[in-house]
Amino acid sequence: MVEATEPQYNEYAIEEFLVRSEPYYRPVGDEMELFTAAYEQHIPVLLKGPTGCGKTRFVEYMAWKLGRPLTVAKDSTAQPLNEGEVRVPLVTIACHEDLTASDLVGRYLLDANGTRWIDGPMTRAVKTGAILYLDEVVEARKDTTVLIHPLTDHRRILPIEKTGSIVEADDRFLLCISYNPHYQSALKDLKHSTRQRFISVEFDYPPADVEAEIVQNESGCTSDQAEALAKLGEKVRNLREHGLQEGASTRLLIYAGRLMSQGIKPRRACQVAIVWTLTDEAELQRSVEEVVTSIFE
Amino acid sequence: MVEATEPQYNEYAIEEFLVRSEPYYRPVGDEMELFTAAYEQHIPVLLKGPTGCGKTRFVEYMAWKLGRPLTVAKDSTAQPLNEGEVRVPLVTIACHEDLTASDLVGRYLLDANGTRWIDGPMTRAVKTGAILYLDEVVEARKDTTVLIHPLTDHRRILPIEKTGSIVEADDRFLLCISYNPHYQSALKDLKHSTRQRFISVEFDYPPADVEAEIVQNESGCTSDQAEALAKLGEKVRNLREHGLQEGASTRLLIYAGRLMSQGIKPRRACQVAIVWTLTDEAELQRSVEEVVTSIFE
Amino acid sequence: MVEATEPQYNEYAIEEFLVRSEPYYRPVGDEMELFTAAYEQHIPVLLKGPTGCGKTRFVEYMAWKLGRPLTVAKDSTAQPLNEGEVRVPLVTIACHEDLTASDLVGRYLLDANGTRWIDGPMTRAVKTGAILYLDEVVEARKDTTVLIHPLTDHRRILPIEKTGSIVEADDRFLLCISYNPHYQSALKDLKHSTRQRFISVEFDYPPADVEAEIVQNESGCTSDQAEALAKLGEKVRNLREHGLQEGASTRLLIYAGRLMSQGIKPRRACQVAIVWTLTDEAELQRSVEEVVTSIFE
Amino acid sequence: MVEATEPQYNEYAIEEFLVRSEPYYRPVGDEMELFTAAYEQHIPVLLKGPTGCGKTRFVEYMAWKLGRPLTVAKDSTAQPLNEGEVRVPLVTIACHEDLTASDLVGRYLLDANGTRWIDGPMTRAVKTGAILYLDEVVEARKDTTVLIHPLTDHRRILPIEKTGSIVEADDRFLLCISYNPHYQSALKDLKHSTRQRFISVEFDYPPADVEAEIVQNESGCTSDQAEALAKLGEKVRNLREHGLQEGASTRLLIYAGRLMSQGIKPRRACQVAIVWTLTDEAELQRSVEEVVTSIFE
Amino acid sequence: MVEATEPQYNEYAIEEFLVRSEPYYRPVGDEMELFTAAYEQHIPVLLKGPTGCGKTRFVEYMAWKLGRPLTVAKDSTAQPLNEGEVRVPLVTIACHEDLTASDLVGRYLLDANGTRWIDGPMTRAVKTGAILYLDEVVEARKDTTVLIHPLTDHRRILPIEKTGSIVEADDRFLLCISYNPHYQSALKDLKHSTRQRFISVEFDYPPADVEAEIVQNESGCTSDQAEALAKLGEKVRNLREHGLQEGASTRLLIYAGRLMSQGIKPRRACQVAIVWTLTDEAELQRSVEEVVTSIFE
Amino acid sequence: MVEATEPQYNEYAIEEFLVRSEPYYRPVGDEMELFTAAYEQHIPVLLKGPTGCGKTRFVEYMAWKLGRPLTVAKDSTAQPLNEGEVRVPLVTIACHEDLTASDLVGRYLLDANGTRWIDGPMTRAVKTGAILYLDEVVEARKDTTVLIHPLTDHRRILPIEKTGSIVEADDRFLLCISYNPHYQSALKDLKHSTRQRFISVEFDYPPADVEAEIVQNESGCTSDQAEALAKLGEKVRNLREHGLQEGASTRLLIYAGRLMSQGIKPRRACQVAIVWTLTDEAELQRSVEEVVTSIFE
Repeated sequence: MVEATEPQYNEYAIEEFLVRSEPYYRPVGDEMELFTAAYEQHIPVLLKGPTGCGKTRFVEYMAWKLGRPLTVAKDSTAQPLNEGEVRVPLVTIACHEDLTASDLVGRYLLDANGTRWIDGPMTRAVKTGAILYLDEVVEARKDTTVLIHPLTDHRRILPIEKTGSIVEADDRFLLCISYNPHYQSALKDLKHSTRQRFISVEFDYPPADVEAEIVQNESGCTSDQAEALAKLGEKVRNLREHGLQEGASTRLLIYAGRLMSQGIKPRRACQVAIVWTLTDEAELQRSVEEVVTSIFE
Repeated sequence: MVEATEPQYNEYAIEEFLVRSEPYYRPVGDEMELFTAAYEQHIPVLLKGPTGCGKTRFVEYMAWKLGRPLTVAKDSTAQPLNEGEVRVPLVTIACHEDLTASDLVGRYLLDANGTRWIDGPMTRAVKTGAILYLDEVVEARKDTTVLIHPLTDHRRILPIEKTGSIVEADDRFLLCISYNPHYQSALKDLKHSTRQRFISVEFDYPPADVEAEIVQNESGCTSDQAEALAKLGEKVRNLREHGLQEGASTRLLIYAGRLMSQGIKPRRACQVAIVWTLTDEAELQRSVEEVVTSIFE
Repeated sequence: MVEATEPQYNEYAIEEFLVRSEPYYRPVGDEMELFTAAYEQHIPVLLKGPTGCGKTRFVEYMAWKLGRPLTVAKDSTAQPLNEGEVRVPLVTIACHEDLTASDLVGRYLLDANGTRWIDGPMTRAVKTGAILYLDEVVEARKDTTVLIHPLTDHRRILPIEKTGSIVEADDRFLLCISYNPHYQSALKDLKHSTRQRFISVEFDYPPADVEAEIVQNESGCTSDQAEALAKLGEKVRNLREHGLQEGASTRLLIYAGRLMSQGIKPRRACQVAIVWTLTDEAELQRSVEEVVTSIFE
Repeated sequence: MVEATEPQYNEYAIEEFLVRSEPYYRPVGDEMELFTAAYEQHIPVLLKGPTGCGKTRFVEYMAWKLGRPLTVAKDSTAQPLNEGEVRVPLVTIACHEDLTASDLVGRYLLDANGTRWIDGPMTRAVKTGAILYLDEVVEARKDTTVLIHPLTDHRRILPIEKTGSIVEADDRFLLCISYNPHYQSALKDLKHSTRQRFISVEFDYPPADVEAEIVQNESGCTSDQAEALAKLGEKVRNLREHGLQEGASTRLLIYAGRLMSQGIKPRRACQVAIVWTLTDEAELQRSVEEVVTSIFE
Repeated sequence: MVEATEPQYNEYAIEEFLVRSEPYYRPVGDEMELFTAAYEQHIPVLLKGPTGCGKTRFVEYMAWKLGRPLTVAKDSTAQPLNEGEVRVPLVTIACHEDLTASDLVGRYLLDANGTRWIDGPMTRAVKTGAILYLDEVVEARKDTTVLIHPLTDHRRILPIEKTGSIVEADDRFLLCISYNPHYQSALKDLKHSTRQRFISVEFDYPPADVEAEIVQNESGCTSDQAEALAKLGEKVRNLREHGLQEGASTRLLIYAGRLMSQGIKPRRACQVAIVWTLTDEAELQRSVEEVVTSIFE
Repeated sequence: MVEATEPQYNEYAIEEFLVRSEPYYRPVGDEMELFTAAYEQHIPVLLKGPTGCGKTRFVEYMAWKLGRPLTVAKDSTAQPLNEGEVRVPLVTIACHEDLTASDLVGRYLLDANGTRWIDGPMTRAVKTGAILYLDEVVEARKDTTVLIHPLTDHRRILPIEKTGSIVEADDRFLLCISYNPHYQSALKDLKHSTRQRFISVEFDYPPADVEAEIVQNESGCTSDQAEALAKLGEKVRNLREHGLQEGASTRLLIYAGRLMSQGIKPRRACQVAIVWTLTDEAELQRSVEEVVTSIFE
């Protein structure tokens, strides 16, 4: 066997995931004010928007931001531990149809002394006062969707049927969910009895100048390349009306920029990061490739 | 790791959930008399009505109310422990298709000394003499629906097959279920062999003046704002005939009021709390937005 | 926490469920003779009829009746323990598609000393010589339906595959099943290989005079009210030809009577107990309400 | 609690089920010779025929018969233990879609000393040299159907994957399966890779004179009643061409005879044992009832 | 209880199943050379052909044959232990849709000292260097099909996810699968990513003279009877163009021969072994019966 | 029992699978540069292309290659342990619809001292810094697809809900997935929220001269045979437009070459390795056979 280098991974509890440094986030409108008001008022938040438009980044930013001394409400219970220290944990759960209530709430494990209860990530978030972020909530099963009902009305409780107990949420707890309304799986839909427990904030891709700034910042490419990529993103998104299922996310533009900064030719970088990623159909690939060629001559 | 503040959540047994202070509830008709009569007569109650029209709040109110000395029947067994003390526990279960009979009735857990039986919330409610409230009962699986049959006839028993025993309900026990008949999932329906075990009380949204009172009371907005929001609720519900799946619940009006009281502009507050929450379709959003504009100029 | 009153529930073994006092039952034809003959001859019995027409009550009555000294057959093994004492246990199982063979026959539980076998309710009934009543048998899964085959032929045995053993039924054991042939779920049907193991007794709602007697006896309303309710039941059942899925069961008439005896106005009592319970459709509700008005002017 | 009489049931191992007294069986053709030849030659047997035509009874009879000294083959290994003693165990399994391979082959159970393997009924039959009778084999799941493949070719082995072992069948082992080809669930069908491992014997209802003999013998009714019932059986089976799904099995005729011997009037006995059992449709019931009336005037 | 004779079954480990005596196999073409070349080259083999045409027998024959000193390749690692001793174990698995990866690869069992890993039959075959024969592989579930991928490329490994380990196959290991392409369940099909990991050898029923030899050899009937049965087989297979789903396998011809050698009349033997086994439809039965009559006058 | 030779298999941990010798791989374009750039930049890679075109081989080659001192980036953390030693482990997982999140992430096992957590292959790869290769990712279940989301954005974490912990990936970790876009199961598709986390490299079969080199190298056949086989591959792939579902993979050409080198006649080798493997339909087989005949006259 080969002698392995020291393992370089860290392992820690889910509820200890903190956003430690300010994420790069450029607000587009009043989304920060809305989120802060909702947080102060204990109103759950639903974020709507297409793949990769920045919803997850926004939640991370707010988790970081809310850790700072708040100026909105004087008597908020959400005070930082120490001046300038980040303090709101962020528990993110990617929803899917095989995620069970037990995965979220907790389960019994067998121990030397019999069974022991292990809190799931949702229970941990509720107890710690985290922001609980359920990504792509429409993909969740009914039993997990229903779990959030008593957490989202005036009770703010999580009943744990398996232990026969009820947990009242920490005062700093907030539930936030995301959802892509333009998705093909329009069959699945949020039931109104769930939906009407949230206020809703709609997101879209950032304007070209903001996106160029983001791409340059995150990929290390030149500002010319970043601007060209932002322009490319905008044009490709318009192809959605010509059969393309989804436009290129900001992430793909960043990937292209990073390949360029690694020495790959711009058109080749765009081909593998954008053209071939967006679609398998030859004709649509040609359309996207034409846009690439028109920008990176 | 960041040093955490003392956890601020409470945890207690499901059957110890008591409604401790009088919930704000404005009766519309004789629903209190009907519920009290049913409670005295051990007749299970079915509440019908749209999302967010106040069914859950009504059950909470009755749980609080029935804890007080009853005046309806002198020889009722439902006497309060101490003068003026709340005393009817409320066990609420949100039904869904992944909720098993074991989740409700109980299960065996492995212990240092072998298996130990843990009562589920339904068994706890039956033993304690709670009001057991099954929310959205049509979403439940067959096995859970059938569980309630022997509880809802003259036997008032809960057979627990896994332990081979039968539990007779405490005299104060009452089963209450809710159901939204205008729901799209009209395929699912309560079987008559289940349905004909209940009396049924139909609910609708409260009249505008009552709703304004509720909104102001719960959101802290001004009375003008509350009245405008109640008017908005009424008008938006009329849009249901123009393609809107569900009207705005009282809860959404309260959310809007709370955002306003937090300093968000009324039209923006209505947009995120009502317009974007009610629908994803651009055209329907425009219709709702027009109603908002007509009220909050 | 509030100090709880002493719990008032009883808990006992499933096979110890005895009908201790004579249930109110008015025979309509020779159903008692047929059932007694079948019991003496070890012939399983299938009861057919609509929801709430009295099938379950009839089985309870026979369980009580057969506990008395039998006059039909001198050498019957079914002798009472003591003069006048009730003695045939009744094990009732509401069938549904999630009920497993293990739920019925038994399962292994883990103990301090390893696994321990726990008899299920069917095994308990077979061993004790109970009447085993499978309610709505067409709702059962195949594996549970097939379980009853060796119990219903000359072998009268219950093979328990999990323990590798066979149990011969006590001589007093009888299997009885019920079934609503007019049900919408006509897709599900009893297979002939199951069905032809039973004699079949068809039931219908009782005639109006008998039903009035039952309603008065069980609700405590006045005899005038009881007669009016019986007439109402008859008329509403005729509406089945006009789109009503099921008529009002005797139980619903009793509910209305009990609300009246609690001081609720007759028309209101009928509305919540009958009109709103029978259907969600406005037009059908109006039809039923007209019948109510014509009787309770 | 009522003091219970001593339980009167017996419990014994599945592979100890022996047919102890000669079952009443009237051969119709050469089916006994065929079965005996197949038994001597280790050829698996498939019995085809309608519900209740005597397939199960025939297998029981052969299990009893083969226990006697065989005259067909001198060097058969199937010698009786003692002169005249019954000796071929019969293991019957009613197949259904929820029967797992583990139910048949065996499973591990947890013990004070860890897991212990428990043979299932199929393994018990294979080891003991029983006749293994799989009733209604088309209802079985794929995994159980496939289990019988290595048992039905020259290998005569049962691989037990969970223990990693192979069991060779005792020399006296025979597999026998039954199947109703006229069943509605014609969708399910025996795959040829399974089917072509058996010889097939077709059964039908016995001729009227034989059936009358059987009915009288088993019900205790008069010979006139028995002959009338046999005639009734014949006529009702002809109604199958007029919409009746299945004819009356011999068992139902016996039920009617037993009710008569218990004092129930013949026409009433036929109504509950035959008419109401065969169908729920009013018109078909009238047709059958006419046949009854024409015979029992 | 009856005193049982000493049990006559053997039980041994799955990987110890050896074909100990030369199976009767008459090669039709160069199938032996192909299989031997594939075995030498570690190329997995797919056998295609109808039910009962001899695929399983061929694999058994090759398992026996390859145990002898090989003449094909001098430096083969597949040397016999002792001169003339059989040595290649054969692990056969009948595939079906309820067979899990755990059934094949292995599972953890609970022991007095905690869990213990038990190798499944596939792992046993891989470690021992057996021929692993997956019968009717298209019936397998996806997870079991995918298991064979790393075993069938240059890696020849079996990853065992549950133990976190990888097993490299013994040098003598070969995977062989079978498949009936003319089957009705044509919906199920081998994916190309699986299929293109095998060479494929097509089989059909043997020519009449060879089949007659096989039938006589295995049934003990006369050579005239064997020839007539082979002719019958040929003619019946031609009926497939007239609606018969499958022709008679060689096995069924042998069954008929064995019944004849037991004294059953030829036409009756053919009826139960062939006519009634091949089809339930009266008309098709008549067609087959005519063929029988034309041969056994 | 036969005395077995010493077992010749090796068994080792999944994360210790290293590609120890340089795999034969002929680059077609700049795929090596792209993969290396992505590896340096922590960008996940999606490989698209038909069955058997070399995707898996390419990943193995890169795993071997990246173990050598890198020249692309000076400050790469991916340094070899010792000069010239292979060092990037490759964890390959064949995806399918029965693969659970537990299979990938890990599970609790019961031990003498209670439960013990066992890392699954994905967790092992994340901790060790392996290349994790998910083959045919579209076949995976939703819960396994979603697992890779937090691994493929800036967080590079694997949340393990069952232990309530988060693992940060080793710096050398890379996720690589493959996917065949021309597959019939076009219904299944990668969701954009997954897809847009990768750059995509498209693969096709190698050009004829390269493929001939590969075939000769891996089969040991003559160079004439190898060239003929490469030509055959090219022509057969063109038949895809005439109804052939997939063309012959390079692997099948190698199989044919190896059979030839074993002495099988070329046309016969092509028949079993290619014609019969590619299709079961007689007509298509004839078309492929004609191509074979035209090349191997």
